[in-house]
Amino acid sequence: MKKPLVGIIMGSDSDLPVMKEAAKVLEDFEIEYEITIVSAHRTPERMFKYAKEAEVRGIEVIIAGAGGAAHLPGMVASISSLPVIGVPVKTSSLNGLDSLMSIVQMPAGVPVATVAINNAKNAGILAAQILSIKYPHVRQKVIEYKEKMRSEVEEKAKNLEG
Amino acid sequence: MKKPLVGIIMGSDSDLPVMKEAAKVLEDFEIEYEITIVSAHRTPERMFKYAKEAEVRGIEVIIAGAGGAAHLPGMVASISSLPVIGVPVKTSSLNGLDSLMSIVQMPAGVPVATVAINNAKNAGILAAQILSIKYPHVRQKVIEYKEKMRSEVEEKAKNLEG
Amino acid sequence: MKKPLVGIIMGSDSDLPVMKEAAKVLEDFEIEYEITIVSAHRTPERMFKYAKEAEVRGIEVIIAGAGGAAHLPGMVASISSLPVIGVPVKTSSLNGLDSLMSIVQMPAGVPVATVAINNAKNAGILAAQILSIKYPHVRQKVIEYKEKMRSEVEEKAKNLEG
Amino acid sequence: MKKPLVGIIMGSDSDLPVMKEAAKVLEDFEIEYEITIVSAHRTPERMFKYAKEAEVRGIEVIIAGAGGAAHLPGMVASISSLPVIGVPVKTSSLNGLDSLMSIVQMPAGVPVATVAINNAKNAGILAAQILSIKYPHVRQKVIEYKEKMRSEVEEKAKNLEG
Amino acid sequence: MKKPLVGIIMGSDSDLPVMKEAAKVLEDFEIEYEITIVSAHRTPERMFKYAKEAEVRGIEVIIAGAGGAAHLPGMVASISSLPVIGVPVKTSSLNGLDSLMSIVQMPAGVPVATVAINNAKNAGILAAQILSIKYPHVRQKVIEYKEKMRSEVEEKAKNLEG
Amino acid sequence: MKKPLVGIIMGSDSDLPVMKEAAKVLEDFEIEYEITIVSAHRTPERMFKYAKEAEVRGIEVIIAGAGGAAHLPGMVASISSLPVIGVPVKTSSLNGLDSLMSIVQMPAGVPVATVAINNAKNAGILAAQILSIKYPHVRQKVIEYKEKMRSEVEEKAKNLEG
Amino acid sequence: MKKPLVGIIMGSDSDLPVMKEAAKVLEDFEIEYEITIVSAHRTPERMFKYAKEAEVRGIEVIIAGAGGAAHLPGMVASISSLPVIGVPVKTSSLNGLDSLMSIVQMPAGVPVATVAINNAKNAGILAAQILSIKYPHVRQKVIEYKEKMRSEVEEKAKNLEG
Amino acid sequence: MKKPLVGIIMGSDSDLPVMKEAAKVLEDFEIEYEITIVSAHRTPERMFKYAKEAEVRGIEVIIAGAGGAAHLPGMVASISSLPVIGVPVKTSSLNGLDSLMSIVQMPAGVPVATVAINNAKNAGILAAQILSIKYPHVRQKVIEYKEKMRSEVEEKAKNLEG
Repeated sequence: MKKPLVGIIMGSDSDLPVMKEAAKVLEDFEIEYEITIVSAHRTPERMFKYAKEAEVRGIEVIIAGAGGAAHLPGMVASISSLPVIGVPVKTSSLNGLDSLMSIVQMPAGVPVATVAINNAKNAGILAAQILSIKYPHVRQKVIEYKEKMRSEVEEKAKNLEG
Repeated sequence: MKKPLVGIIMGSDSDLPVMKEAAKVLEDFEIEYEITIVSAHRTPERMFKYAKEAEVRGIEVIIAGAGGAAHLPGMVASISSLPVIGVPVKTSSLNGLDSLMSIVQMPAGVPVATVAINNAKNAGILAAQILSIKYPHVRQKVIEYKEKMRSEVEEKAKNLEG
Repeated sequence: MKKPLVGIIMGSDSDLPVMKEAAKVLEDFEIEYEITIVSAHRTPERMFKYAKEAEVRGIEVIIAGAGGAAHLPGMVASISSLPVIGVPVKTSSLNGLDSLMSIVQMPAGVPVATVAINNAKNAGILAAQILSIKYPHVRQKVIEYKEKMRSEVEEKAKNLEG
Repeated sequence: MKKPLVGIIMGSDSDLPVMKEAAKVLEDFEIEYEITIVSAHRTPERMFKYAKEAEVRGIEVIIAGAGGAAHLPGMVASISSLPVIGVPVKTSSLNGLDSLMSIVQMPAGVPVATVAINNAKNAGILAAQILSIKYPHVRQKVIEYKEKMRSEVEEKAKNLEG
Repeated sequence: MKKPLVGIIMGSDSDLPVMKEAAKVLEDFEIEYEITIVSAHRTPERMFKYAKEAEVRGIEVIIAGAGGAAHLPGMVASISSLPVIGVPVKTSSLNGLDSLMSIVQMPAGVPVATVAINNAKNAGILAAQILSIKYPHVRQKVIEYKEKMRSEVEEKAKNLEG
Repeated sequence: MKKPLVGIIMGSDSDLPVMKEAAKVLEDFEIEYEITIVSAHRTPERMFKYAKEAEVRGIEVIIAGAGGAAHLPGMVASISSLPVIGVPVKTSSLNGLDSLMSIVQMPAGVPVATVAINNAKNAGILAAQILSIKYPHVRQKVIEYKEKMRSEVEEKAKNLEG
Repeated sequence: MKKPLVGIIMGSDSDLPVMKEAAKVLEDFEIEYEITIVSAHRTPERMFKYAKEAEVRGIEVIIAGAGGAAHLPGMVASISSLPVIGVPVKTSSLNGLDSLMSIVQMPAGVPVATVAINNAKNAGILAAQILSIKYPHVRQKVIEYKEKMRSEVEEKAKNLEG
Repeated sequence: MKKPLVGIIMGSDSDLPVMKEAAKVLEDFEIEYEITIVSAHRTPERMFKYAKEAEVRGIEVIIAGAGGAAHLPGMVASISSLPVIGVPVKTSSLNGLDSLMSIVQMPAGVPVATVAINNAKNAGILAAQILSIKYPHVRQKVIEYKEKMRSEVEEKAKNLEG
């Protein structure tokens, strides 16, 4: 599993603080990934090339984050036949409601698997869940992750209950 | 491929006109599916059981549609480790904005792959894209589907251009 | 009145600063309560168990706070037959509008008594008002509370009028 | 149980088609109720009198429905110490979002137990749940109601599964 | 003109920093006013009394500011026959959109003259414009005020143009 | 009282079905009015002239209705020193939320007395309330109107109570 | 002026009833145009080609209409250096608010000249205004158009005034 | 090219930090511009004069920024036949959603080319794109600008990829 299975892309380097959460979760799940900047608006040809070639290069899931009139996830989904996960990045004026609508409201034929505003962590987990239908060891990681979440909450509950 | 790979569930039979679009697309893609009603709010135990057992029964992707305070997709995602696709069903008062927010704004740890309001067709296609990372013949169908969409638009364009 | 009559639960310990206002008001009203963390999404079985057993343990009203795709109040209301009060917790991106819609827009059959965003204090008072139909001394406390609010405003009015 | 325990009021007779669902559910639960029109804006004194006297007349829960700048539930809650359930009635321009905000966003000290837009049925059920903490036979009805909902969904699920 | 012509009221002393802008503008216009706290929710009887007696005491315009489920302007307008100006006060969660809807969306029969969120200054100016139809010297002040605004902008424009 | 005291203007003849409600209420109150079309966007000079001359012609209150990017009320308020009442007309796409924001969110210095979406009737009543500070017989009409509303509601209440 | 100066494109033939208003206005202005279907999502390569070649083919302004996650205007603007006018097409669930945000909220560097929801007529007029800076006879048409609008409103005003 | 081709105006000097981005981009493109304050609400006559005379003075594109009930762009567009670009300035309460709606939702006949909230930079680029249909050297600058954006993103991508 040396070649990356997940491609994480974002429209701008300003999205990095949000999007690196997806990378972190994939590392925890020991899933190979690549991460780079691909702007639908400022580098349309780079975006086209990335989307065209991702599948051939062995990528199996794409995570794309963008803010405002966030076209990156939808455009990549239009070009590639891979499952694309979209992360609406929070914006300064409309708080990411614009990003959410631009990503989730895709027309019939071209879905983007949208997660919550700024929730790149969930994009990473969703990528793992998708991969887990093929890779049993990833499924195992997902199950362990859920178990860990459970026990953390129970720990905190115990502390609060005193 | 006799056993269903996709489970389509919805909170109420009133969601059926929307959700059967997911079923139709899966039939086009020749992917086995099951479809039933599972209400998080009116049959919580049935929902629990469904989510708990889906993986063991061979289901690999769950599509869940619900409207209003739409808890079905998120609760199934909380219980099962399978990828869950959420379809926000349009509501009479808030037009599905409530359904969208209730489905997409999941907390860190439990993603729901959300598609556009009422767009169960895209949920079906996304399920196919997810399955396609494991089943090459499904990948082929996805590529053909995209190709068909392309040629249909070009046909219409020709007609309009005259 | 040693056994708790009110169960205060929240989806995450990050909701505690908001939710402890409910506890404080119950203390003022001398109503026994318990407080803990129960996450619908990260501890679904714990949530199920809590909701199932609350009534038997003597709980008469449940206050549940959650943010984002806030499923805790609605799921508890779906499992228990007790009155459930929902507190939409403010979120960083959508300011709690998502929490509000996820909690208040429950389908026919399963109400959640929703209060204002972040207003756990009102959840506490509402719990007291509900209990007051059974416990006359709580009714007395509610009346005194309203009287105290009234006189505080009048005091401030006098100060402003000079 | 001859004297009404629940008072159903609404701001206008145009709200009656919505609000009578609350009455219907209370009849199903065999809970005595009264129903009338009380406008905060057009009959402020009648509203005051209603809110002041409800408790003395034996009313234990008030259900108030109103649309637009919906002040009826909040004003009644400000005057009476009874638990008040608010039903935001759908409006022609803003679809009831205005009603919802006017009812749910009450300030600290004066809660209104808000249900979903136009969901007077849930207001009736919530009233029953509140009464059920005092009247065991109402608790029994609530439990039966939940059970009936469950079996209806399961029936429909069977029909759909074929 | 010793007796106050304008009554400025607000739901809470926390609204004072916003509402004192109305007072300041009335001072600039040399219009007598009174200012106090009247909470529709915490002091409903005081509110009733204030609204009932304002006209008899010589008040000709009422300015009422409130936030959230802002019932004060609408309730005063329902009780008094005086023109009532409503100031929606910005709220921490919904930024005053809730206040705006609760104030402006009044039902037919009971108008509230609503100004912009937090714009108590404009409430003061509007009060002056209303009084100006009766008091010629106030009309003169309004005209001078508009003239002053004009020259200030022109001054700034000159500075910017350099 | 032969010369019109109220000028009713609207941006387009498509606003007439809404705006004539203002005229009707003024007729009920026996207040002279004029009504015409003045478009800020399509007849800016006519708008300027109307706003400039209204006061000299004896108009004391202006009611202006417009939809979408509704600039008419605000522009007339910027030019004239008369009190201007704005009616946000409901639009087909955004339901009048755009009209409401374009009218109510005026900057400091230039208020528009905004009423509810499509509620031209309230604009008429507000105009009467404003005139009533100068004309005692109009005040009398306003009081009678409120009384009539009250008795109508009470009549309906009696019918409902049976 | 035989070769088209304006290219009108839309994401789907379902947008044609809206978008043909742009064509009609250009015909009135005697500006040559072409009209076709170019879907960013279903024919990304066709979209790329269209945007790449438009300038070389003599197109000077592009009008692009799309609904939902409306990426067509923004993607064309990202590829071409021509001015691009975006028309947000009204959608069934979110009424075009999603289209508007997806089109107008473009990131720094890639503007789309956005007009009102469904207002393709204004897109046509704006295209004419842009061309008018180069073609004096188009400027003349724009001036005449504004003059015609003015006189039509005045005609209607006269009819209403009676 | 000594006489300004672009006129940048804004409703208030508080909009200057936002609007100077338009000026900066025009400087980069070596396009002459003028910049000043013109308030539709506080200096309506100055606004009229500005809009009336801009074309004669040689201005070819107008950029107008305003916040709240932002009437400046629309009013200038109503008076002048030049293309007008509107910049919705972010507001403290509604984050510029009010500005956006007040600017973009113009009625048929009077378009405003609206850019994203606070995105005056894009207004400058759009002005350049419009001018570029007439001035080939500006087209060249636009192309170079897009090229520069592209290479900057690619540089950042390389750095991130490591």
